Amino acid sequence: MELSVTQENLSKALSAASRVASTKTQLPILSNILLRTDGNRLLVAATNLEIATTQLIGAKIAKPGSITIPAKLVAEFVASLPKGTVELTVKNDHLHIAAGGFKSVINGIASDDFPELPTIDETSSVQYSISSDDFKQAVTQTILTASSDATRPVLTGVYWHSHDGALYLAATDGYRLSERKLVETKSEVAAIIPTSTLQEVLRTLSDDTPEVELLFDESQVRFRAGDSEVTSRLIDGNFPDYRQLIPASSETSIIIDKAEFVRITKIAGLFARESGGSVTLNADAANSTLAIHSIASQLGENTSESTAEVSADGQVTLNSRYLADALSVITGNSIEFRFSGRLAATVLSVAGGKGNYVHIIMPLKS
Amino acid sequence: MELSVTQENLSKALSAASRVASTKTQLPILSNILLRTDGNRLLVAATNLEIATTQLIGAKIAKPGSITIPAKLVAEFVASLPKGTVELTVKNDHLHIAAGGFKSVINGIASDDFPELPTIDETSSVQYSISSDDFKQAVTQTILTASSDATRPVLTGVYWHSHDGALYLAATDGYRLSERKLVETKSEVAAIIPTSTLQEVLRTLSDDTPEVELLFDESQVRFRAGDSEVTSRLIDGNFPDYRQLIPASSETSIIIDKAEFVRITKIAGLFARESGGSVTLNADAANSTLAIHSIASQLGENTSESTAEVSADGQVTLNSRYLADALSVITGNSIEFRFSGRLAATVLSVAGGKGNYVHIIMPLKS
Repeated sequence: MELSVTQENLSKALSAASRVASTKTQLPILSNILLRTDGNRLLVAATNLEIATTQLIGAKIAKPGSITIPAKLVAEFVASLPKGTVELTVKNDHLHIAAGGFKSVINGIASDDFPELPTIDETSSVQYSISSDDFKQAVTQTILTASSDATRPVLTGVYWHSHDGALYLAATDGYRLSERKLVETKSEVAAIIPTSTLQEVLRTLSDDTPEVELLFDESQVRFRAGDSEVTSRLIDGNFPDYRQLIPASSETSIIIDKAEFVRITKIAGLFARESGGSVTLNADAANSTLAIHSIASQLGENTSESTAEVSADGQVTLNSRYLADALSVITGNSIEFRFSGRLAATVLSVAGGKGNYVHIIMPLKS
Repeated sequence: MELSVTQENLSKALSAASRVASTKTQLPILSNILLRTDGNRLLVAATNLEIATTQLIGAKIAKPGSITIPAKLVAEFVASLPKGTVELTVKNDHLHIAAGGFKSVINGIASDDFPELPTIDETSSVQYSISSDDFKQAVTQTILTASSDATRPVLTGVYWHSHDGALYLAATDGYRLSERKLVETKSEVAAIIPTSTLQEVLRTLSDDTPEVELLFDESQVRFRAGDSEVTSRLIDGNFPDYRQLIPASSETSIIIDKAEFVRITKIAGLFARESGGSVTLNADAANSTLAIHSIASQLGENTSESTAEVSADGQVTLNSRYLADALSVITGNSIEFRFSGRLAATVLSVAGGKGNYVHIIMPLKS
């Protein structure tokens, strides 16, 4: 193999691949990145056997070939090189890298042992094109309510599914739940994508890729954005029937400015550290206020209050961190927060009833 | 005690005090901040018995008094409050804080048990006024060569001393040494200031304090900047006679662009991680180059090269992290780097011989 590429393109591709290349692995070659000429381009790929990522970059190829190289060192080395042309030459399983006054020899492993990159049969699969902005927002809004508990694998992903002519994302960890309506669709899909895959796709998306293409088959999903692809297995199993958990109506409904709600939640949370984040919200219809009370047993206590439109008096105790998380991903300047006493699920959404996002938090027993 | 202050002033003072208040202490009151009215101002103070910090802020005082309160919680709470007036009221060892819609009750401890704040006899002490910019630069340039090894306490500080009519700072950890000439002076001083004290003073300095005043007595130093004071004990003992360690001349002298030197050092360092940072510098007079070679045994090796003015061929092996540290604090765009073979001390300074800073690194055995 003998070729030249620009430092910018090579560095970006190596950086994406090195995030996926496994550092803790029985198989040393999985901590390597595959470089392989592909027509007049260079393929840069890595896999940890759950996720595979490939990047195609333009190259001036003098001699085709391939090699695998240690991910972390090479990614850092190329990132530190000056902008301009980088020459790559393979001799006897060594990769020679030259750029300006910098010359390195990297000990590689022949690419024969590198695992086959996964493929999807494009004819028998379901496809969606999503704008990058919508994709980023929807994933960010749902991923934070997914579980990190490996004993219930189906809850460690985000459930992408069609329902009533639209594509929905949903995730729950048993304490909270989020649902986001993404696009209208006629295709049928029901697939649980690992959160680690979605996080990797978020990192891969650069500002100059306006769209993400998703392709689902029975057991895999492939994301394509520009010349980057991420292919991942899906999580096996059935996602719980979560729709029944979203209350249609509530006894107390509050409309409150989001910035105020964020501020009183943050301050209440400071006093709630010792009590595992427990804060009590108190809605007062006569005074049009929402107050949050919290106690730091040894140190003191706090009441933070904001004006709000309140339909009826009510009290509920929540984890302040969950509340802060929810407020950090709901769009709009005005929030609707509704609940029915101390036991039923609480519901957060953008005020005005026209949102595409709903966030549920279960109360704490108090 | 009953008074009002602005959130901005109170937050800044509490933040400085909470950095000094001890979190790991046998004496619970040392993790508290002292609030005490002082004429028409509020004194905000903390001490860990090594360092004491005091801030005086303007206040509207209705009733004088004092209390001590938990540092971390109150500092974070006040930092999160909206800008504007904060009301502080003490009732039965409780501090009531009110601002806008926020009301807190903090469990305090009466100030009777708070340790006496240290004082310096201003008449019998040596005083210096230093511009904040010079102070910051000189401390940053020397502090990084101080030792963190508590078994030789005198090396864990920066040695402030007068010599030949000037005030110098010096620090060494046995592997490297830095010396900075600060100001002309007629006063005599020889004092070792703990690095933790200097770091705290750096954090205390805001952009609107043009000068720092230093006052030394036999065992203490006090820094005053605006309405903030930091008082610290000095380190007992004699600083080694370091001047004899600085070579007056060297066999090989190199003039090199600083940005280039930083870049080849950084890249060489990537390949030197397995070998404890060891890199070999090779000066070539005929070709006018400085090359840095490093080996990552399993992964590969690298040579990074830059053009340079070289007086004579030579080789020396250094720790690349020490070299990167030195380059990060030397001013100017052009560096003079000189050494005499593989065993003698190497010397870095700004090129042109007019600098006020010199940095020594001992070679590694190779």
